[in-house]
Amino acid sequence: MTLGIGLLGCGTVGGALVDLVADQAELTIRQVAVRSTTKARSAGIDSSLLTTDAAAVVARDDVDIVVEVIGGIEPARSLITAALKAGKPVVTANKELIANCGAELLDVAEEAGVDLHFEAAVAGAIPIVRALRASLRGEKIRRISGIVNGTTNFILTKMTEEGADYSVALAEAQRLGYAERDPTADVEGFDAGAKAAIMASIAFSANVVAGDVYHEGISGVTASDIEFAQRLGYQIKLLAIAEQFNADGIEGPHSVGVRVHPAMVPNSHPLASVRDSFNAVFVEGMASGELMFYGRGAGGEPTASAVLGDVLDAAAALQQGGHRPTKEGSRLPIMPIDDLPSAFCVNLQVTDEPGVLAQVAGALGTNGVSIRAMEQHDIEDSETARLIFITHAAPERQLRQTLAAFGELPVVQGIDSVLRVLGE
Amino acid sequence: MTLGIGLLGCGTVGGALVDLVADQAELTIRQVAVRSTTKARSAGIDSSLLTTDAAAVVARDDVDIVVEVIGGIEPARSLITAALKAGKPVVTANKELIANCGAELLDVAEEAGVDLHFEAAVAGAIPIVRALRASLRGEKIRRISGIVNGTTNFILTKMTEEGADYSVALAEAQRLGYAERDPTADVEGFDAGAKAAIMASIAFSANVVAGDVYHEGISGVTASDIEFAQRLGYQIKLLAIAEQFNADGIEGPHSVGVRVHPAMVPNSHPLASVRDSFNAVFVEGMASGELMFYGRGAGGEPTASAVLGDVLDAAAALQQGGHRPTKEGSRLPIMPIDDLPSAFCVNLQVTDEPGVLAQVAGALGTNGVSIRAMEQHDIEDSETARLIFITHAAPERQLRQTLAAFGELPVVQGIDSVLRVLGE
Repeated sequence: MTLGIGLLGCGTVGGALVDLVADQAELTIRQVAVRSTTKARSAGIDSSLLTTDAAAVVARDDVDIVVEVIGGIEPARSLITAALKAGKPVVTANKELIANCGAELLDVAEEAGVDLHFEAAVAGAIPIVRALRASLRGEKIRRISGIVNGTTNFILTKMTEEGADYSVALAEAQRLGYAERDPTADVEGFDAGAKAAIMASIAFSANVVAGDVYHEGISGVTASDIEFAQRLGYQIKLLAIAEQFNADGIEGPHSVGVRVHPAMVPNSHPLASVRDSFNAVFVEGMASGELMFYGRGAGGEPTASAVLGDVLDAAAALQQGGHRPTKEGSRLPIMPIDDLPSAFCVNLQVTDEPGVLAQVAGALGTNGVSIRAMEQHDIEDSETARLIFITHAAPERQLRQTLAAFGELPVVQGIDSVLRVLGE
Repeated sequence: MTLGIGLLGCGTVGGALVDLVADQAELTIRQVAVRSTTKARSAGIDSSLLTTDAAAVVARDDVDIVVEVIGGIEPARSLITAALKAGKPVVTANKELIANCGAELLDVAEEAGVDLHFEAAVAGAIPIVRALRASLRGEKIRRISGIVNGTTNFILTKMTEEGADYSVALAEAQRLGYAERDPTADVEGFDAGAKAAIMASIAFSANVVAGDVYHEGISGVTASDIEFAQRLGYQIKLLAIAEQFNADGIEGPHSVGVRVHPAMVPNSHPLASVRDSFNAVFVEGMASGELMFYGRGAGGEPTASAVLGDVLDAAAALQQGGHRPTKEGSRLPIMPIDDLPSAFCVNLQVTDEPGVLAQVAGALGTNGVSIRAMEQHDIEDSETARLIFITHAAPERQLRQTLAAFGELPVVQGIDSVLRVLGE
């Protein structure tokens, strides 16, 4: 029995998928909806399959599975809704849509008794969505920390390994096609934020949307931040972090924290060695312990490979019957960034005189921030010393208050850098 | 609706599973088959559930899912067969059984229309089995290279980081409970071989059994091998490698190669940074590109976490109907180790005189082995030099013939080490 696919969109991922489906005996592509039927396409695309009428593709009787690789909210959302309501399973690679309307679409799928698959929406070829939805379904997940944007990881790798400035590394990423002409979505953390929202929603059954995610990008990371971090034994990575608080009977309301920001990752941590445009997602489960999933987070073929896995899953479900229900998603409170705990590395210039450390330690103590490690270096031929310390995890608000208190201390001449540190 | 579990075996994994199941509202453990009902057990085990009659547990009307964590071939095989024939899905963590009788048991499951799950049989908490069976179902996989034995990885890490001798590191692993009193199954590669057979069978639909796997352990790895590899920028790891040849229309018969042996892994490779008792599986797919899955490969809780994921999958299938068929497994030819291609690093002592390199290169060329990199060091105050070279991949037979030819050359004073190199 051959199953028919209706393909919505035929860019890099759609084109690669057409090639992969050609090798699968039980699948055939019935029609491909595109914006322009006259645009030049790769050799594998049979031009007689092209149409501009996407709704008609969804509605065809011989289309059993709908694959959406258009991207963006509309018309993808309406087309997917129509497909699900017609009882057709849908496979999408659309992170923006799932991060904003995932709960709504999963409800439609649930009501229709069909599956909505979106493995390719997070971290390309890496099967993190299936791992969270299936393998770790019963696992209490404490935290997910991921390098989920290849563009920024490429830029940070260049800065680290070649000492390049941010602007130089960005220009190279643009030249190589890793970064868009307008790189905002990548470098300011919007893309990683959408993926963090999706992972948090699945892992914590929490219905987190993209707008819930605090994000800071990498445009403020300097070559000297990176050099400084390396000297201390850390790599700077843009991390998407989703955490669950008080999930296990501890006092206080059950809530989640989801954020994207650069962080210092200790060299001994598996995420530290994820280089170039590779992605990796590190999962901390109560019973499973530490897990990491590594691979290509973008690109036509890797993403199409994830889409194909989902299509074959949908095909098996259609042929054998059955639909895997989604875990109930409740709207859990989102912790504001001010309340989210982080460890920080702070690099101060201070007057080199007795009693300085006591004053700095006093400002930390007053604001409830405790120190995990500290070192002081005299700066030659000057009356200035450098004080570097790493804190234990403390709510971001308290760290900000501490920095304000440093500003009031005459002995503190400058705050050279403040970076979050992965750990604890 | 609550589903009943019949648990066969209650050791470390079974005990941890009992605790995890207690948190799952839709699951309950009906009965637990053990060898002795009087042995002391952890607090979570209700002693009234214990019985020595495993067959009766399988047969109970209120047991919907059978979980087997006894290990070994019998009675596990008969019990699982009985459960499947009774239409009950089975979850097992038994690598020995699946590596030897997996195809037979999957046939029984297929005929009965129920699922046999065995995520926990390979690499503990790491969801590699589901990744290969589901996410990568449509992927053409070239090669899988895994660190799938935590004991040997712990020993090699100790040897690397502390310069310890093999016997010292083994003794420490035994003291910490990572290695058994008789460590043969781990250190000689039998355990890793069973896991390699299972992964090859799924990835290549190939029905590979444990006995098909060539294996060399780590007992021959010396502290100086490790030091030498490190100086060249490599880590020595025990790798389980499963490869597919001529799968993509290339000349020659379609076949698979499956083997376990120590290998030099370049520091830049993701497997190089997998330390201590962690496991990781590196997958090279044609479309997906490079993927790696990292985590705890053993231990009660991580393994039980993988069992729980499978149980919840089986529960969803029971509640929603449907059974996922296994890919057809054909008995593909197994490449003998002599024909399997590897790159090698060879460390020779040679006479320090003109023309030596030409003689050594001649022996390589005659046997069809080509050099990728070479370096020569004079050994001070002697007429001896050290010649180190890394070959391109060549069949093992040709490398052996080359080494024999070296033995005939008067200028070759000794072959200090020969190690396989991951790559190409």
